Amino acid sequence: MSSAASSASVSAASSASAFVPAPFTADDYRARMARAARSAADAGLDGVLVAPGPDLVHLTGYRPTAATERLTLLVLSAEQDPVLVVPTLEAPDAERAAGAAALTLCDWTDGKDPYAVAAPFLDAGGCFAVSDSTWAMHLLGLQQTLPGTSYVSLTAALPMLRAVKDAAELARLEAAGAAADAAYEEIVKVRFSGRRETEVAAELARLLTESGHEQVDFTVVGSGPNGASPHHEAGERVIEQGDMVVLDFGGLKDGYGSDTSRTVHVGAPSAEEQRVHDVVRQAQQAAFEAVRPGIACQEVDRVARAVITGAGYGERFIHRTGHGIGVTTHEPPYMIEGERQPLVPGMCFSVEPGIYLPGRFGVRIEDIVTVTEDGGRRFNTTAREMAVVD
Amino acid sequence: MSSAASSASVSAASSASAFVPAPFTADDYRARMARAARSAADAGLDGVLVAPGPDLVHLTGYRPTAATERLTLLVLSAEQDPVLVVPTLEAPDAERAAGAAALTLCDWTDGKDPYAVAAPFLDAGGCFAVSDSTWAMHLLGLQQTLPGTSYVSLTAALPMLRAVKDAAELARLEAAGAAADAAYEEIVKVRFSGRRETEVAAELARLLTESGHEQVDFTVVGSGPNGASPHHEAGERVIEQGDMVVLDFGGLKDGYGSDTSRTVHVGAPSAEEQRVHDVVRQAQQAAFEAVRPGIACQEVDRVARAVITGAGYGERFIHRTGHGIGVTTHEPPYMIEGERQPLVPGMCFSVEPGIYLPGRFGVRIEDIVTVTEDGGRRFNTTAREMAVVD
Repeated sequence: MSSAASSASVSAASSASAFVPAPFTADDYRARMARAARSAADAGLDGVLVAPGPDLVHLTGYRPTAATERLTLLVLSAEQDPVLVVPTLEAPDAERAAGAAALTLCDWTDGKDPYAVAAPFLDAGGCFAVSDSTWAMHLLGLQQTLPGTSYVSLTAALPMLRAVKDAAELARLEAAGAAADAAYEEIVKVRFSGRRETEVAAELARLLTESGHEQVDFTVVGSGPNGASPHHEAGERVIEQGDMVVLDFGGLKDGYGSDTSRTVHVGAPSAEEQRVHDVVRQAQQAAFEAVRPGIACQEVDRVARAVITGAGYGERFIHRTGHGIGVTTHEPPYMIEGERQPLVPGMCFSVEPGIYLPGRFGVRIEDIVTVTEDGGRRFNTTAREMAVVD
Repeated sequence: MSSAASSASVSAASSASAFVPAPFTADDYRARMARAARSAADAGLDGVLVAPGPDLVHLTGYRPTAATERLTLLVLSAEQDPVLVVPTLEAPDAERAAGAAALTLCDWTDGKDPYAVAAPFLDAGGCFAVSDSTWAMHLLGLQQTLPGTSYVSLTAALPMLRAVKDAAELARLEAAGAAADAAYEEIVKVRFSGRRETEVAAELARLLTESGHEQVDFTVVGSGPNGASPHHEAGERVIEQGDMVVLDFGGLKDGYGSDTSRTVHVGAPSAEEQRVHDVVRQAQQAAFEAVRPGIACQEVDRVARAVITGAGYGERFIHRTGHGIGVTTHEPPYMIEGERQPLVPGMCFSVEPGIYLPGRFGVRIEDIVTVTEDGGRRFNTTAREMAVVD
């Protein structure tokens, strides 16, 4: 059947487009920075160092045009007010960030040693959490300038720093999910057979933009054997009658992420295709039902994996079950064996089991789920049954 | 005058669009990886570690969809054949890279420790150059797994690794420059006054795409006071009669970069505006004429700065004179005080002095220049005189 729950979802998407979140204020950012500094101190660290990337956006609202070889670095510690070291060239942009009023800018001009400029704000014998995507050259520059300092990855040290979302963030993520769902409701109406994957992907990108995404991060269209490579994006393969097609798409709406997958079929599926799809759907449902405060992240993975292994496809479920989502479409917490972090209300992550049969086809079904006081709630609500497309 | 050299440049651009470079082969990548390993050994290093980014593209032709928390790492050393550590999920993509035939893939699945997977390929007591934009979390993972290893930034250790371009690369850079010039010749014909900077920027992006760029990196439109912030992109300001407008734009064509700036004026300029523009043009010309094999990079900066300082604007030239260009629009060598690297034939970089008068206007003029046996040659050849636009 094709897009059964259409009318309900479209009205959800309309209200999602109408949703205009109040901008975060300097006070919001001040509170986030203070919480990060406190969390670091609680973890026995002397501070947090944050280069351009999602952590900087979350903590300050500042998103430089690009991360470059010119050092931009936020220094947070319990001992002092927040400082943002920034190239003079980029200082005017930084000053316009919503969080700028909650920190002190310290700019440096080309030709100066930026690590020497940052050094006075760091405890020379301290241990600091450094944001994951900080460039290695900057970490090496700090290690060389301050040989007594030591560093740990921010995600390793404070994995849950951005994981628990507040009400304003949850509203944005829910709206992003509804917008992605609206795109799905439309894409199942278009013709698939005889068109290249890239054409369908371009249409999907357009639909995401139309439904309110300001940034499209990925539009996977994996038809037939291409669906068996989970990270295949979209290629020149022409989709044929009888193909399974994995659709996996998302981006940012009002600064927060969407990410959903559905697997559709061009024409009627074979008994085997239907069976594999059913197994994945049951695994996704079981994992969703397992979500509740207090269980470990790895438990969500185990539940999904048990269903798929029980059906004989364990070896063909070749990735973890999920990842967090927020100001990025891919962040902690991870639903993976070995992750013992308990779920906490306000966490948001994907639940996306899959089965991949090399050279033949793949199936993946994915919703964003948030942890509530008594279970889980989906931000993607389109039908998970296999849609038949033309 | 408006776009004087139009006809010559348009024909150059037409031939640029017609230019279809032969793809780089596995042999090309094998030779580049061998040269990098040799350069590292010559510098007393035990190898080179390269995460996703421009160095990986240059050395292997592999460009993953995104750099993520999942480790992808090329290990090069004089002692062994090249190895690419890659997440199992992304192995099919990596296998399709043109350089894959010249290296051994070693994949790791979710749940494994990727640093332990990489460790056997590294000398446990070795010193390695690590690509600049490698994520800090990956460097920390290697430092923890192999506490006897040490690391230096790849650019600090081997700054000239990608700096000297071969004939095939020079042809691509020349074509990219001609394509950017074709975009400039068209943008000066459009109306500026009464339109937002973002509208003109969108038109510039479209022109870059039409002239053959597969990726637009930046389209700076800095009108009036916005032009005084060198890294201002484009905003909601409505361009007015009498404005100076800095245009700075570029991207990738056939995988190689373009980057050019011209400063135009809406209607007739004042005497002061003309004088500032003339000073920048003279500085750019003098710096270009200084380019020849054997002089230090800093000399190019000094020549441009001397002209601007001599005219009384030294304090208002607030950035270095240039940066290299290749598979990125921003890389070594840098034309900056303190950079003693001698110029070598085949190097390509920007020459882009500017003057910035806060609250009033800015002027920047930029060409990509390559070092030849007996001097320099411009890849941007549009008129550098101030164009008057409507």
